[in-house]
Amino acid sequence: MRIAVVGLGKAGLPLATVIADSGFEVIGVDIDDRKCEAINRGENPIPEERGLDELIKKHSGKGLIATTDYEDARECEVFVVIVPLFTDENNNPDFSILENAFRNVGKILKKRDLVVLETSVPPMTTEKRVKGWLEEESGLELESGEFYLAHSPERIMTGYSISRLKEFPKVVGGVNGESGMKAFEIYKNFIPNLHLVSSARVAEFIKLIEGCYRDVNICMANELLKIADELGIDFYEAREYANHEYCQIHLPSTGVGGHCIPVYPWFLIKEMENREKFGYARLLRTARELNDEMIEYWAERIIVECLKLDKPLSEVKICIRGITFREGVKELYHSRNLALVRLLMSKGLNVFVYDDLFSKKEMEKLELKWIEPKDADIIFDAFALKLE
Amino acid sequence: MRIAVVGLGKAGLPLATVIADSGFEVIGVDIDDRKCEAINRGENPIPEERGLDELIKKHSGKGLIATTDYEDARECEVFVVIVPLFTDENNNPDFSILENAFRNVGKILKKRDLVVLETSVPPMTTEKRVKGWLEEESGLELESGEFYLAHSPERIMTGYSISRLKEFPKVVGGVNGESGMKAFEIYKNFIPNLHLVSSARVAEFIKLIEGCYRDVNICMANELLKIADELGIDFYEAREYANHEYCQIHLPSTGVGGHCIPVYPWFLIKEMENREKFGYARLLRTARELNDEMIEYWAERIIVECLKLDKPLSEVKICIRGITFREGVKELYHSRNLALVRLLMSKGLNVFVYDDLFSKKEMEKLELKWIEPKDADIIFDAFALKLE
Repeated sequence: MRIAVVGLGKAGLPLATVIADSGFEVIGVDIDDRKCEAINRGENPIPEERGLDELIKKHSGKGLIATTDYEDARECEVFVVIVPLFTDENNNPDFSILENAFRNVGKILKKRDLVVLETSVPPMTTEKRVKGWLEEESGLELESGEFYLAHSPERIMTGYSISRLKEFPKVVGGVNGESGMKAFEIYKNFIPNLHLVSSARVAEFIKLIEGCYRDVNICMANELLKIADELGIDFYEAREYANHEYCQIHLPSTGVGGHCIPVYPWFLIKEMENREKFGYARLLRTARELNDEMIEYWAERIIVECLKLDKPLSEVKICIRGITFREGVKELYHSRNLALVRLLMSKGLNVFVYDDLFSKKEMEKLELKWIEPKDADIIFDAFALKLE
Repeated sequence: MRIAVVGLGKAGLPLATVIADSGFEVIGVDIDDRKCEAINRGENPIPEERGLDELIKKHSGKGLIATTDYEDARECEVFVVIVPLFTDENNNPDFSILENAFRNVGKILKKRDLVVLETSVPPMTTEKRVKGWLEEESGLELESGEFYLAHSPERIMTGYSISRLKEFPKVVGGVNGESGMKAFEIYKNFIPNLHLVSSARVAEFIKLIEGCYRDVNICMANELLKIADELGIDFYEAREYANHEYCQIHLPSTGVGGHCIPVYPWFLIKEMENREKFGYARLLRTARELNDEMIEYWAERIIVECLKLDKPLSEVKICIRGITFREGVKELYHSRNLALVRLLMSKGLNVFVYDDLFSKKEMEKLELKWIEPKDADIIFDAFALKLE
């Protein structure tokens, strides 16, 4: 059986290699021709992904062929779509990339093929939008059983995606009963810890509420850190002894970044607001706003620290150490550390950055001033939340 | 060594028996003379507490003597205070019971005695209020080492208190270093899983943030249930598959009741508001309000169900099944199920109650109408959240 994986990014490429490693012929489709060529040469574009190097070397150019042309995937019977879904400045999802991918899949879709969406999406995206795009382009009808459509939200974590796919529980749900069964049977071959849920809608919701759990709990950790600071209490000591079987207080931060956690709550918040159920997502919205506002708290803490120095405030060299959205992942999407840098700059402060993962040149391209931490007057470690 | 336990309620009595069971002579002090007499006769006033019967039979009248007279505790070297702290209608703590207990302890306090507060309290209660009451009444000075004062917040759960004391992690922190050490050494004799933290203030905070974690997470479960209902999704199915090592979505409810979880967040919220840090407890306040507002959601759900019946709304017999704050615990303090009953009554609906733990007579004393569920038109199971 041939399986197409559409989207060879941080989530798609590990999945494509794991499917190939289970003995399927995989056609990987991506818009980036350089990336496709590199993959076909056996090069790994995500070096921080444990175990990916090996799988790419083993399968690329053989069981895994990368291509920019959907036509090369025409012989596939299964199409897994795992392309990014971005949100605009108002936190509304922009479906254009997803729509483009599915319309292209629709053009080559044949009777009895299975399509699985892996991208995390707002509720009912699979059963409404995706179904519509596929039916329009293919002329096939889902209700008549002419093709199958399911959702199995990716649960990867960059750096640990291969082990997540091999060990972590994953869910799959169909737009109808046969779709769920069909997707479950095929996915079971490469996802050992797989659970069939009652619908694609439930599968969508499961992924979103996981993100909400994280976002709200990180917000609570941030709030408790502020309260502890105000009371002269070491938050980390309190957290250590508060946590046990029934209490899992998270770690505080400068906010929540990346493609996932800060985005998913908005899918539910916006959906409820569109339905005029304004009060139904009040906690989620509050947590989202508070997490985004955390940079103001840290900016104030940094300024208070600067005031202790015997120097004009504008001359204090402030180094923000760590600007990625998560430690060890070279990714700036929705990075609150970067937002903190920009906030401090907007106040007229003399802000520099340092990050192990970025060169001086790369930083300067982003219009940021680079500094060796030792040359700064004050260092804020954005991951350890330590001021030195 | 003789140890006084002041307060023989649901938290104090299990602790007193566990201390007695470790070989100490325990003087239990309580204002309720009937309760003291019953305990001295070997009767257990908290039958739902697993293992308590046996410990009371074994020690009462021997290693454990209950009394209403603080004078009987004069020979004790350790005073453990575990009396209730209620909050008023504005959610401000009412310290009168606590103050009375500590002033009485102060009157019999001798040099080098240790006092430990077990009641969960607002931040800095131990180091400020309790210290003040004890010093005023005893004439002794804490700073000069004339007595010791520590806080070790109770972590019991009615029904499981004995096993909690024997197995669960517990913390203790002193108002000064010597107090912490002294309390740790003595407590270690009857609390095996004991951790010394750096101060009484940290110990207070640890207990409060545990409550906050629960309150916020129950609020999130309630919010996600509302969203799931709106989307036509089975919340419980989604929760089952969303939860794993890194995701612990709680169970929804009619709100949060009892003496602990709905009270502790207010201690932090009020403290921050008193300091004019209004934004510092915004998530905690939002969660608290939303949990209390859940009865409105359930009232609406019940009314919508009533409307399906072919009867005038005012004639539909509604049975709320389960009115205690928690299933299996005969306690109505801050019960949201009871609040739901009153809310429905205030709307002019024909509301009845049923609870396995209460007789018809007891219900009628509370001015509630009792019904056998089978005689009702609609039953709302307030624990299972099921409408029948």
